[in-house]
Amino acid sequence: MTNKVYNAEILSVGTEILLGRTTNTDARDISLMLGEIGINVKYHTVVGDNPQRLRECIAIAKSRADIIISTGGLGPTCDDLTKVVLAESFGLELKMNEEEKNCLYDYLTNKGYSKEMTENNLQQAMLPVGCTVFHNNWGTAPGCAFEAEDKVVIMIPGPPKECNSMFRTYAMPYLRSLSDEKIVSHSVRVFGMSESALDQKFRDEMNAMINPTMAPYAKESDCLLQITAKAKSVEEAEEMMKPVIEHVCNELGDIVFGVDVECVEERVFRLLKEKNMTFSAAESCTGGELAKRFTDIPGASEFFLGGVTTYTNGAKAALLGIDSALIEEKGAVSYEVAKEMAERVREKLGTDMGVGVTGLAGPDGDGVHEVGTVFVSLATKEATFVRELHLGARRTRSYIRRCAGNYIFDMMRRYITGLPVITE
Amino acid sequence: MTNKVYNAEILSVGTEILLGRTTNTDARDISLMLGEIGINVKYHTVVGDNPQRLRECIAIAKSRADIIISTGGLGPTCDDLTKVVLAESFGLELKMNEEEKNCLYDYLTNKGYSKEMTENNLQQAMLPVGCTVFHNNWGTAPGCAFEAEDKVVIMIPGPPKECNSMFRTYAMPYLRSLSDEKIVSHSVRVFGMSESALDQKFRDEMNAMINPTMAPYAKESDCLLQITAKAKSVEEAEEMMKPVIEHVCNELGDIVFGVDVECVEERVFRLLKEKNMTFSAAESCTGGELAKRFTDIPGASEFFLGGVTTYTNGAKAALLGIDSALIEEKGAVSYEVAKEMAERVREKLGTDMGVGVTGLAGPDGDGVHEVGTVFVSLATKEATFVRELHLGARRTRSYIRRCAGNYIFDMMRRYITGLPVITE
Repeated sequence: MTNKVYNAEILSVGTEILLGRTTNTDARDISLMLGEIGINVKYHTVVGDNPQRLRECIAIAKSRADIIISTGGLGPTCDDLTKVVLAESFGLELKMNEEEKNCLYDYLTNKGYSKEMTENNLQQAMLPVGCTVFHNNWGTAPGCAFEAEDKVVIMIPGPPKECNSMFRTYAMPYLRSLSDEKIVSHSVRVFGMSESALDQKFRDEMNAMINPTMAPYAKESDCLLQITAKAKSVEEAEEMMKPVIEHVCNELGDIVFGVDVECVEERVFRLLKEKNMTFSAAESCTGGELAKRFTDIPGASEFFLGGVTTYTNGAKAALLGIDSALIEEKGAVSYEVAKEMAERVREKLGTDMGVGVTGLAGPDGDGVHEVGTVFVSLATKEATFVRELHLGARRTRSYIRRCAGNYIFDMMRRYITGLPVITE
Repeated sequence: MTNKVYNAEILSVGTEILLGRTTNTDARDISLMLGEIGINVKYHTVVGDNPQRLRECIAIAKSRADIIISTGGLGPTCDDLTKVVLAESFGLELKMNEEEKNCLYDYLTNKGYSKEMTENNLQQAMLPVGCTVFHNNWGTAPGCAFEAEDKVVIMIPGPPKECNSMFRTYAMPYLRSLSDEKIVSHSVRVFGMSESALDQKFRDEMNAMINPTMAPYAKESDCLLQITAKAKSVEEAEEMMKPVIEHVCNELGDIVFGVDVECVEERVFRLLKEKNMTFSAAESCTGGELAKRFTDIPGASEFFLGGVTTYTNGAKAALLGIDSALIEEKGAVSYEVAKEMAERVREKLGTDMGVGVTGLAGPDGDGVHEVGTVFVSLATKEATFVRELHLGARRTRSYIRRCAGNYIFDMMRRYITGLPVITE
């Protein structure tokens, strides 16, 4: 089965997705992982817990994909039908897997994750005859894989953690052996230029490229250029991309905040680690989001010593010792208060940097500033930088909060790497 | 076009989704909105920026859905093909819409959201002849709708904010006129029982139900029972569901934290508003997430006066005045420190309640406690409640952080409504 490019379809089964109650993050996570091993995802399909419609979707997937990966519908509840219909579509029978049945007993009764050993849980150990079993170390329902009718079929449970871990641990090695072409991809992350401007800047080059390819994508308040190459080996693919990445980074200059980093805060985390520096944060309109985003990163607590969320003037006084008269005079949303917030929190926690943010995330204004007006600040031992932002009165609360955070993390990145910190 | 149940397919166009770079939240948001107006979503499909595959997906959608809703691929970048292929599939031509073209000029040059007026932006004003134009008040690319070959076709831009707002503002009224059957749905939200146990408890009843129907769904660390009815009018559907909801709430008792609330914190927000009470938070392992989650709710700042994130012992002393000797003796992850955190932050900010959380979210342990050990606390004027949680050593950092937050919000809910606060 070598020398072939495999196309995959991810078939997610669950009425809860069609009702909008659940976001299909499984398809995203599996797509990312398939990209790592050179398998192209051509379609995502979501269908409800309905045997007839599922059967039809399987028939369509058979007609256009080499690899069919189902997510969801393996659990104990009564609308979990995936395994039954998928096995039937390929003429396979289901049989109780004794080993998995014993594991289920063990897991549910001894490990303390669930106090109930309900009868419907046993359905989960029924598996297609002859399949490769993927044991579920992260939950209850096992997954599996089989080959039939020249297709590869993989079934993975729906809960995101189980899906993610099982796919990486068992399905990836299973699939890796099927292909010998490698696809490698890098993303050049940019803060300070729109997707549309990026596209315009590189459009002619992009149109002329075949392998590697390049495409711009927008994130919530930054964007990226994705460069992808296919080759016989990872090394060869990397060699093909190297000059392209260099060229792009040179063209864009210091608005590139990293290559293959997840987000600006991750870049800041790496820099803080490298330089052994610390920071603290005083947040008003972002309400803890800045701290949350940074501490989402495992190990972040070593470099983020602490923060305060000070919505009221009283809290600004009680936690940071900011003079109420100053807030009264200049307003809570002001250059001066932002400056004080960063300086005071830095001093209070004895960190290398202190950051502050105060503004209007909406939906309500304060009668003085337009929604979207935000002051971000960075206090360091040499100087304090304050920047006034207008993030758009028609933007959502969550956009404004996220975007303000990106500006702060980008200020930190610039300061740590010795670039000029932009204040206007 | 009355007396018919309309089935919809959401066709999302974008290689970035297939690469896993973007999560398909548009399909989720549109599904939720369609549910409100009684349109059943039967399929979500995602296809890349490839004309041939898009054409095939449109043909499949035509064969199985009455309403085809596309998202994405209307923007200015060169891989945005949706409009061209969709119009062609229904035999319609594209024509420059002068009004939209002028709006684009106006928006991009005057409103300050983008400093670039690039030529590719003009492509966005090319629209199918005879369509209903959906003006984009939230971005640049207009959407549109048309009826052809007995199908309703709707095109919506991909960026989530634009998609969401345009769909609600323009597509919903457009669609509402097509159907006269109403689907109404309510969700009974539960904290303290698993989806599997819920399913077992109500399985026989659920199997016997036709209209309304009932189904259990799992959220990240809570779950829900969704009850849905179809009828000629919203009132009739509501009447049909009323006894079912009452029955379920009676059976489940005080583990029901609300009906049709988004999350526990939203319920807490409503209660605080009702009782005019305030709270503050001292966070260690949740690192600002508690504050962020609560302040995601517009208007939350009136009831959440402020918080601190204190990772280090030094920060706990500097911001809250907790005795370092106590932390030394009992450990940062301890009953005593959790208690102090809640009491000190309540005192410092003069709020009705103070909450605290300290624990190990992982991936690294502290050599004393297992990952997943978390102490949550609630200080009130009458008493301080502290609870030791073991959220599972194999759980992810993000799960543990989120789950700890749910326990705290649920403690608050119980306290405010006069229910016993569970501490073991």
